[in-house]
Amino acid sequence: MKLYMPTKVYNEKNCVENHSRELAALGTKALIVTGKHSSRINGSLEDVKGALERERIPYVIFDEIEENPSVETVMKARALGVSEGADFVIGVGGGSPMDASKAISLMMANPEHDERLLYTKVQTSADGPVREAFPVAEVPTTAGTGSEVTPYAILTKNVLPDIVLTTVPLEKDREAFAHLEKRTKQSISHHIFPALALVDVTYLQTASRTGCINTAVDTLAHLIESHLNTNSTEYSRIYSEMGLRTWAKIKDKLLRFEIGEEERQALMRACTLGGMAIAHTGTSLPHGLSYPITTEMGVPHGKAVGIFLPGFIRNYGNQEEAMKVLYLLDFGGEQTFCEYIRQLLGEVAISEELWERTMDEVLANPAKLKNYPFMLDREKLQGYR
Amino acid sequence: MKLYMPTKVYNEKNCVENHSRELAALGTKALIVTGKHSSRINGSLEDVKGALERERIPYVIFDEIEENPSVETVMKARALGVSEGADFVIGVGGGSPMDASKAISLMMANPEHDERLLYTKVQTSADGPVREAFPVAEVPTTAGTGSEVTPYAILTKNVLPDIVLTTVPLEKDREAFAHLEKRTKQSISHHIFPALALVDVTYLQTASRTGCINTAVDTLAHLIESHLNTNSTEYSRIYSEMGLRTWAKIKDKLLRFEIGEEERQALMRACTLGGMAIAHTGTSLPHGLSYPITTEMGVPHGKAVGIFLPGFIRNYGNQEEAMKVLYLLDFGGEQTFCEYIRQLLGEVAISEELWERTMDEVLANPAKLKNYPFMLDREKLQGYR
Repeated sequence: MKLYMPTKVYNEKNCVENHSRELAALGTKALIVTGKHSSRINGSLEDVKGALERERIPYVIFDEIEENPSVETVMKARALGVSEGADFVIGVGGGSPMDASKAISLMMANPEHDERLLYTKVQTSADGPVREAFPVAEVPTTAGTGSEVTPYAILTKNVLPDIVLTTVPLEKDREAFAHLEKRTKQSISHHIFPALALVDVTYLQTASRTGCINTAVDTLAHLIESHLNTNSTEYSRIYSEMGLRTWAKIKDKLLRFEIGEEERQALMRACTLGGMAIAHTGTSLPHGLSYPITTEMGVPHGKAVGIFLPGFIRNYGNQEEAMKVLYLLDFGGEQTFCEYIRQLLGEVAISEELWERTMDEVLANPAKLKNYPFMLDREKLQGYR
Repeated sequence: MKLYMPTKVYNEKNCVENHSRELAALGTKALIVTGKHSSRINGSLEDVKGALERERIPYVIFDEIEENPSVETVMKARALGVSEGADFVIGVGGGSPMDASKAISLMMANPEHDERLLYTKVQTSADGPVREAFPVAEVPTTAGTGSEVTPYAILTKNVLPDIVLTTVPLEKDREAFAHLEKRTKQSISHHIFPALALVDVTYLQTASRTGCINTAVDTLAHLIESHLNTNSTEYSRIYSEMGLRTWAKIKDKLLRFEIGEEERQALMRACTLGGMAIAHTGTSLPHGLSYPITTEMGVPHGKAVGIFLPGFIRNYGNQEEAMKVLYLLDFGGEQTFCEYIRQLLGEVAISEELWERTMDEVLANPAKLKNYPFMLDREKLQGYR
C-alpha cells in the first residue's frame, strides 16, 4: 500500500497573505484561473492579486471557467497562459477552477501538443516529449471537492458512444461519427498534485444554503466511496476514517443549516480529508452514476452524487464494513442514514429512460466498476435509485 | 495550521524490489548508509543492493553507523560519498542510519562546507551558498523512530556547557574551553524529508523482544508527545489520533510479546503515523529528558523516553486532553497506564545527581520547553521520575 500526499496545505485565516512568499516561489509569472463571480465576491481573488503584487510577481487572469469546465475552456486558458509567458497556475474557486487549473498547467507546459494530450497516457508522443505540468497552487472557496489536495482534474468533453469506440479503432476513421458525440465528464489521464493549497474558511462565508449542503455532501461521498473501495488501505483510511468522524460532528447542524465559524472549519477539514482519501483510492459508483444526472438534468454535482449514497451503503457487498462507515458517521443504522439524506437533499426524479441508460453506461465501463470490490449486476444497481 | 508530508511511502512485502525503478530514479550513484550487522541479517541490505543492480545504478556502502550516530561518523560517510561521486543516499536500518543518511546527504551536497553547517540555519554562509540535500530514500528495519517520514536527524556531538555558550560569544574564543565539552544528542538545524520510504515488515522479524518493545515505546512516545504539544493541530492529530488507536490494538500482545505478522504490521503503521505526527509538531519533554539518560547511562532510546511517559501524562497541564489520549489508547486511567509501562519496561534507577542535572538542563533550555504548552517549574518536573 502507498501513501503519497505531497501538497503543502496551509489552513488558517489570511493564509494567502501569510504565505505569499511560498506562492511566489512557484514561478516568475502566474496565470490565475477562476470563474466569473464568486472569487470576486468572497475576496479570494483580491487576496491572491494582493499577495502576488506584494512579491512583485506579474500575473494574468483567466476568469471564464464555467461549472463542469470543458476541454475547450481549458484550451482557451492555455492559449492565454502561453501567450503571456506564465509559468505557474493558481486556481481560485470551487472544484471547477481548481480542476481546470491542473489541466491548463499541463497544457501550458506542452504548448506544441493539442487537447488530445489530456486524455493520452504517454511520456512522449508523435508531437514530442511530454513535460511535467507547471507548478499549481489552489485557493478553494467551497468545502466539497477536495481538489486542492487531489491529483485529479475532471473535464466535460465530447465523447463517442462505446459502440463506435470499440468497433472503429483508428481515430481518423472516427471523424465520420462525430455527429454521434455526447457531452460527458471524464477525468484527464494525468495525475497532477498541487504544490500548494491555501485554505482560508473566510471565503466560505458567502456560500448559500444549497451550495453549502451540496458541497458538504460531495465531501461525504468522497469519504464513503474511498472507505468502501477496492483501493482502500490502512493508509487511505487514515484520512477517510478521520474525515467521517469529523463529518459526523456537523451533520445535525447541516440539516438545520446552523453553520457558523466552527462548523465551516470542520466542513473544510472534512473536505480536505476527503480529498486526501480519494487521492489514494479514487471514487466509486455514486460518482460514476452521477455524471449523466449532472450533464443531462443539470443537478449540481454534490446532490447528484448524494442521492446514490443510501443505495450504495444498502447494497454494499460487505455489510460489516458499510455499518462501520455508518458508525463512524454516528448514524444508528441504514434507515436513519437514508432518511437523513432524503431530508437534506430532497427527491430527484430521474426518468426511467435516463436511469436505464445511466446503468447501461456504468455496467459497460470497466473504469467505473474497478473501484467497487464486488461483482455488480443490473439487479443490484437497480437498488441504488 | 499546516499539513506537509511529502515522502512517498510504500508499505508492502517486497517493496524494495517492487519499486526499484522509483529508487533508481533518485540519482545516478547511490551511497548506502547502514550499520555493521542487522541490515545484513534481516535481508534489507541484500534487497537494496539487488534493486540497484537490477536498475544498473552503481553504489557504494558505508556500514559504520553506530547507535546514536555522531557528527564525526556523518563526516566520514560524507567523505566516502563525495569521493565516489554519489548523488543520492539510501538509509537502511533503524533510526541511527536513517537519521544519519539525511545529514550525510546535506553534507554531500555541500562538499565545501564543514560540519558546522549541520547546526547552522543559513541559506548562504562565508563558505558559499548552501545547496539542498541530495534525495534520500529510507528502508526502515525497526518500528519505532518513524525517521523514514520525518525531516529530523538527531546526531551525537560535543557541546560546550550553556554557561560558556552564553558568556563567550565568538566561536574562536570558545576553543579555550574545549576541555569542558560534553557528548549530547541534538537535532540538526535543517529539515530534510526523505523522498521515498520503502517499508517492508519482513525486515522486523529478527528484532529481539527488548528491541521490539523499546522501539514500540518510542513510537508510543511520538504519538503522545505530538498529541499533547504546543504545535498540535487538527491536521497533526489526523496522524497521532489514528496512531494511538492503532497502538491500542497491540498493547496487550506487546506485553506478552505475542507479536506475529499482523502485530508487526500494526506496529509499523503506528510507527509511520508517529513519524508523520512529530513531523508536524516535534516531540516534547519525555524526549528532552531522555537524552542524558541515554548518553550517560546507555539506556536505549525508547526505554529512556518511555519511563517519563507516565509522569508526562500525570502532570500534563490539561488533564482532559491527557485523558483523551489514554482513552484513544484504551487505558482505563492513569494508574493502569503507569502500571502497564512499569511492567513493559521495568524500573530504571536514575541517580539523584543525574536526575537533578537532567532537570537543570531541560529547565534552562527554551528549545526543550517550547513544545510544552504550559508553564513548567522544577516541582512539576520532579513528578516525572
